[in-house]
Amino acid sequence: MASGGVGEEVLRNKQVMLRDYVINGFPKESDMYVTANTVKLKVPEGSNGVLVKNLYLSCDPYMRGRMKPPTYASYLDSFTPGSPISGLGVAKVLDSGHPNFKRGDLIWGLTGWEEYSLITATESLFKIHNTDVPLSYYTGILGMPGMTAYVGFYEVCSPKKGEYVFISAASGAVGQLVGQFAKLLGCYVVGSAGSKEKVDLLKNTFGFDEAFNYKEEPDLSAALKRYFPEGIDIYFENVGGKMLDAVLVNMRINCRIAVCGMISQYSLEQPEGVHNLMNLILKQARMEGFMVPNYYHKYPEFLNLVLPYIKEGKIVYVEDIAEGLESGLAALAGLFTGRNVGKQVVVVARE
Amino acid sequence: MASGGVGEEVLRNKQVMLRDYVINGFPKESDMYVTANTVKLKVPEGSNGVLVKNLYLSCDPYMRGRMKPPTYASYLDSFTPGSPISGLGVAKVLDSGHPNFKRGDLIWGLTGWEEYSLITATESLFKIHNTDVPLSYYTGILGMPGMTAYVGFYEVCSPKKGEYVFISAASGAVGQLVGQFAKLLGCYVVGSAGSKEKVDLLKNTFGFDEAFNYKEEPDLSAALKRYFPEGIDIYFENVGGKMLDAVLVNMRINCRIAVCGMISQYSLEQPEGVHNLMNLILKQARMEGFMVPNYYHKYPEFLNLVLPYIKEGKIVYVEDIAEGLESGLAALAGLFTGRNVGKQVVVVARE
Repeated sequence: MASGGVGEEVLRNKQVMLRDYVINGFPKESDMYVTANTVKLKVPEGSNGVLVKNLYLSCDPYMRGRMKPPTYASYLDSFTPGSPISGLGVAKVLDSGHPNFKRGDLIWGLTGWEEYSLITATESLFKIHNTDVPLSYYTGILGMPGMTAYVGFYEVCSPKKGEYVFISAASGAVGQLVGQFAKLLGCYVVGSAGSKEKVDLLKNTFGFDEAFNYKEEPDLSAALKRYFPEGIDIYFENVGGKMLDAVLVNMRINCRIAVCGMISQYSLEQPEGVHNLMNLILKQARMEGFMVPNYYHKYPEFLNLVLPYIKEGKIVYVEDIAEGLESGLAALAGLFTGRNVGKQVVVVARE
Repeated sequence: MASGGVGEEVLRNKQVMLRDYVINGFPKESDMYVTANTVKLKVPEGSNGVLVKNLYLSCDPYMRGRMKPPTYASYLDSFTPGSPISGLGVAKVLDSGHPNFKRGDLIWGLTGWEEYSLITATESLFKIHNTDVPLSYYTGILGMPGMTAYVGFYEVCSPKKGEYVFISAASGAVGQLVGQFAKLLGCYVVGSAGSKEKVDLLKNTFGFDEAFNYKEEPDLSAALKRYFPEGIDIYFENVGGKMLDAVLVNMRINCRIAVCGMISQYSLEQPEGVHNLMNLILKQARMEGFMVPNYYHKYPEFLNLVLPYIKEGKIVYVEDIAEGLESGLAALAGLFTGRNVGKQVVVVARE
């Protein structure tokens, strides 16, 4: 069954463990720790899983919910304190008990935060066929965040040329891509972010029409009115809370809000109250939540669109690379205070 | 131009005036007053308006917003203190300068809270052709609230047979009809209302599967969980605030919320905060505001559906009738404390 060659070799396997649930507040590096275990580089007899070497791990906002106890509603099951955390990543197959995967295949999907993982939920893995782009892109523009931008913008927002588009957390893994999709369609695009560096990136690298630092705006509604004197047609929602309230009073008729995430709320004891929902009626607006796994059947169509854009330089993608599994703790924690500039990736190994 | 007969007759014209803007708090009877003016029962020379005798006036929740100063966002322009208020009503044409209307026609649309009105915005008037139903129905089931229930349920909610439907303010002008539409489609229907009498009406007269008095539920989320152990597919939102928050944690996947109104919020200084919007993502739910004037082109199609239902007794409609223009002040104010049982109508004259 196993495709031989690696045999019974036993190696050290460094792992990132959750120390204890993090209910409120920003997660800290010290909420996790690295430990060293061992791994046999072989799929157990009778298993149809795959044994992979992890290359790139993805830091994503939804992971905050998994640090909470199981009683909290979240996207996925909670992590288990004292066990390795898991997340999306790019990996190389070292041994396979599954007919669809063979040694040497590159995959992306749900894996462990460790050097080597035995993945049994192989149905969630995607095989990587295009390797003439950076492999780390499969944690970002060519992975879940890319698909999120794609379905959130094209499917949920029903965008039209010339519309006024606002994106929060706009320099992040998803936002930077939504903005570039919107520009390619001929929209007017404004993004918010949390530092001058990110604002510059939005305007100069991603080609947004305008961008602003929300931390420097005492009145978010006034800021939006400044950039959207005629109001907002499409809001790609990544942050929630006060920014959402400010958008609600700056909508145009038939505004669409794609609710992708609410990162400003994930670490609060209770989410902030949103007061201006009445405007949904006055503006006949639609607010719609979505989750990308429901759209993965569109992944090939997505690749057909976005791979040429990347190769032709029509879309650029900025990553924030943390080197080494040990650096992943700070990288993941930093996501929730906006420390990262662009998509946060952790390099475990480069092949 | 005028069709003669009424000539230069001058009559007393009682009018309901707004005393002053009502910013916060429930409007009171004393925020309005009745005064007597005079009227010439003739359309002025050169006007293409119509002179009508008002028969039935409609008390509608959106009117609360018109009592606020113009700086507050609302559906329509603010009322003017010291001037008669306006609203939807049923009236009889006494004189007409417009080719589409003639003396004796019955109409419904925007008119004044007074005995006689000169209506110049005739484009908003609907001619009444079916008079074998109570004429007052054109303020309710056959008027704006009926169309609101129709488009809100069928167009915005995309309902399917067997789905779990929850309606707040369910015994009101719109809610009672939404519930009956949902039952006719084969949905499971639960309504909330503010008294035992209304709850009985929902269950015994309108045929809801279940109903509860929200004032007797210390935990609205627990109440909804009791009636919807598997969650809510469709929420027809009339109240906002705490009830919306309770619905958000009781949604099924792909829940649709038609945002029709938020009457619990209209008299507050600041709307309550809604905390559970994150569930829109987790449940991939859609929340959509709508306003019925955008759908008036479907009015004939709506009448074709609902008139037979009424005549066959498949749909019933409960009105709360206030006799006389003077009684309109308390009737309108009472709408915001839920005093009315069913659609609140004011009879000015019966032909």
